[in-house]
Amino acid sequence: MTYLDLARGFPEDEFEKRVFKMQKLMHDKCISAFLVTTEPEVRYLTGFHTPFWQSPTRPWFVIVPHAGKPVAVIPSIGEVAMKETWLDDIRTWSSPNPTDEGVVLLGDTLKEILDVSSNSSGGNLQIGIPMGNETHLRMPLMDYQKLKDVIAPHTFVDATEIIQSLRIIKSEREIEKISKICKIVSEGFAEIPTLINTGMTEREAFRAFRIKLLELGADEVPYLVGATGQGFSDIIKQPSDRIIEPGDLIMFDTGSTYDGYFSDFDRNMAFDFTTDDANSAYKIVWEATEAALEVALPGKTTSDLWQAMASVLESESIKSDSVGRFGHGLGMQVTEWPSNTKNDRTVLQEGMVLTVEPNLIWGHGHVMVHEENFVVRGDGVELLSTRACPELEIIY
Amino acid sequence: MTYLDLARGFPEDEFEKRVFKMQKLMHDKCISAFLVTTEPEVRYLTGFHTPFWQSPTRPWFVIVPHAGKPVAVIPSIGEVAMKETWLDDIRTWSSPNPTDEGVVLLGDTLKEILDVSSNSSGGNLQIGIPMGNETHLRMPLMDYQKLKDVIAPHTFVDATEIIQSLRIIKSEREIEKISKICKIVSEGFAEIPTLINTGMTEREAFRAFRIKLLELGADEVPYLVGATGQGFSDIIKQPSDRIIEPGDLIMFDTGSTYDGYFSDFDRNMAFDFTTDDANSAYKIVWEATEAALEVALPGKTTSDLWQAMASVLESESIKSDSVGRFGHGLGMQVTEWPSNTKNDRTVLQEGMVLTVEPNLIWGHGHVMVHEENFVVRGDGVELLSTRACPELEIIY
Repeated sequence: MTYLDLARGFPEDEFEKRVFKMQKLMHDKCISAFLVTTEPEVRYLTGFHTPFWQSPTRPWFVIVPHAGKPVAVIPSIGEVAMKETWLDDIRTWSSPNPTDEGVVLLGDTLKEILDVSSNSSGGNLQIGIPMGNETHLRMPLMDYQKLKDVIAPHTFVDATEIIQSLRIIKSEREIEKISKICKIVSEGFAEIPTLINTGMTEREAFRAFRIKLLELGADEVPYLVGATGQGFSDIIKQPSDRIIEPGDLIMFDTGSTYDGYFSDFDRNMAFDFTTDDANSAYKIVWEATEAALEVALPGKTTSDLWQAMASVLESESIKSDSVGRFGHGLGMQVTEWPSNTKNDRTVLQEGMVLTVEPNLIWGHGHVMVHEENFVVRGDGVELLSTRACPELEIIY
Repeated sequence: MTYLDLARGFPEDEFEKRVFKMQKLMHDKCISAFLVTTEPEVRYLTGFHTPFWQSPTRPWFVIVPHAGKPVAVIPSIGEVAMKETWLDDIRTWSSPNPTDEGVVLLGDTLKEILDVSSNSSGGNLQIGIPMGNETHLRMPLMDYQKLKDVIAPHTFVDATEIIQSLRIIKSEREIEKISKICKIVSEGFAEIPTLINTGMTEREAFRAFRIKLLELGADEVPYLVGATGQGFSDIIKQPSDRIIEPGDLIMFDTGSTYDGYFSDFDRNMAFDFTTDDANSAYKIVWEATEAALEVALPGKTTSDLWQAMASVLESESIKSDSVGRFGHGLGMQVTEWPSNTKNDRTVLQEGMVLTVEPNLIWGHGHVMVHEENFVVRGDGVELLSTRACPELEIIY
């Protein structure tokens, strides 16, 4: 029972710190309230954690005022669960209600919150919402238009940077959860040789691996892609009924979760034997990863990571890169800001949790991907995934 | 190996039919192109199936022109996978690219597609996107604003009804997949007495059930909520470390998937013994379900289903209903249109797959939920879930 030893959720002061920092940034940018609508944003600010978001029927809203705790404006089905969080002010409407899916209640609540700000500052105020890259608004577009009319003369402005700059740095408690799931998945990968063998179908292999991860303590395995064969070019693939043969490579890439935090790394292995080409491709991505891990210090940038990997990879492979980046942020989502690209230039800071994920084109248009997870510490990287073997592992 | 006997995916003519019907509806509403951005919509029109959507980094676009096959405008990481679908015209950009996340390529493609329409009809054309209830736009708001400028004088208009009216009726091939996962989950529930016992924690119970569903052939268990205790009021709950005791009720509600199609039903059981109050609450929701299943004929409405259930439930329970509906559509998402509410009034048609899900307030603010899945047939319902016992099952 390895999965009972780490506290679930967060104490209230974790959320207080998040919101306090957010309000400081809001103040700097003249943002009087911040509206979030998506699962990770709502969870980040409240601790509200449920898979119910998969139902598209109901929108959920959380507002961060310029001071004090966030206010939830949610469907009544979530009231009992939201009351378990640190929030005090929870307003609900009976949903589904196609004629008004919370828009009037949300508009009134926003205006009430802004009125408090207006008394001190006056004028038309700005409500921040994330409108930039990697974001979306989880509410019907028509309702958003109505809401804009309701809150006029106040306006919505893009405030992606505020939530991004907070979430990009992980607290020690967040890192513990990511570390936990990375350990579980590392153990899972270590069991593949006893779990999967030639003669199984891809689908059977996926199923066995998924079950093993749960047995080892993963809460969920929301993201699992992989492939088998002499090589593969689709690296976001679902399993087929293809039977694994001697000489095949196998790649699994999983985003598994513990208490709502993700791992995201892959492993490549071969059954019985492998080719020099495959082995050599593997060594190159392993070395590229090594190079990135060596330069990942505070003050360096995501583009330094990219450059370290690119200098190991062949130039042809970089030009034909279809993935578009060599790794990314990691946390409440399987991929988060930033991206390790040539031009991203995000400065690495202590507490950032990242993946390095070089990919190499080899053989006949095949892709070899390698990935590790780590946290940026003052003196370099702390690996969260157990470092893969420098040589392509053979399963006998 | 019960999970190898049903073909994966769909033959091309399934998609041809969907798109042909869609184009007919588009024509009726003077919509020259239809743009979709979310996972179920893209999968519905193309068959593109990957968990990669969990990464928020990259938007994905599919356009249905007024005639011919859909056109994909997607990040290059998805090109190989999209080429496996029935689509011919696949345009890609290298992503992530924060300065242009596909907007120019999408705008150019839309204009190119509309130009063909303009030749015959002239003037400013309308591009449909889903903007109504239960929808959202999965792309950054700022990019949507840019896109609106790019495509001017053409405009985006709400076309929720078009995709809704298509997806609400399931083909026999879709029903087969839903039926398959409902059977698997029914088997899983039947094994609970041998799987879960007093002394286990909720978390252990969830884990055991999740693993069992995978072993029985579920591809994934994306949605699993539940609770234990003398009663519970949070019905979208994640597990805790609470230890199951004699006399406890247990409720699991799962949306599991087979080939991308969901089941969605729950079961209630008790350990060792139960109270008259719990038993009586269970019987009422069972009877309410029975009443709904009896009236579910083509020509009846979702409000008739609601009324049939409401007439069995106590009036107090209906007034304090926090769930907001007594069931909903089911398919590629764990909940879909329509909703069984007092005023929904969607006319039932053959091929609709629905849940009936009455809930009852009992004891000290506890909620008892019961749910079954079925398809509307010409002569009544065909149950997809194995009908629950009329009496609350006791696990000894």
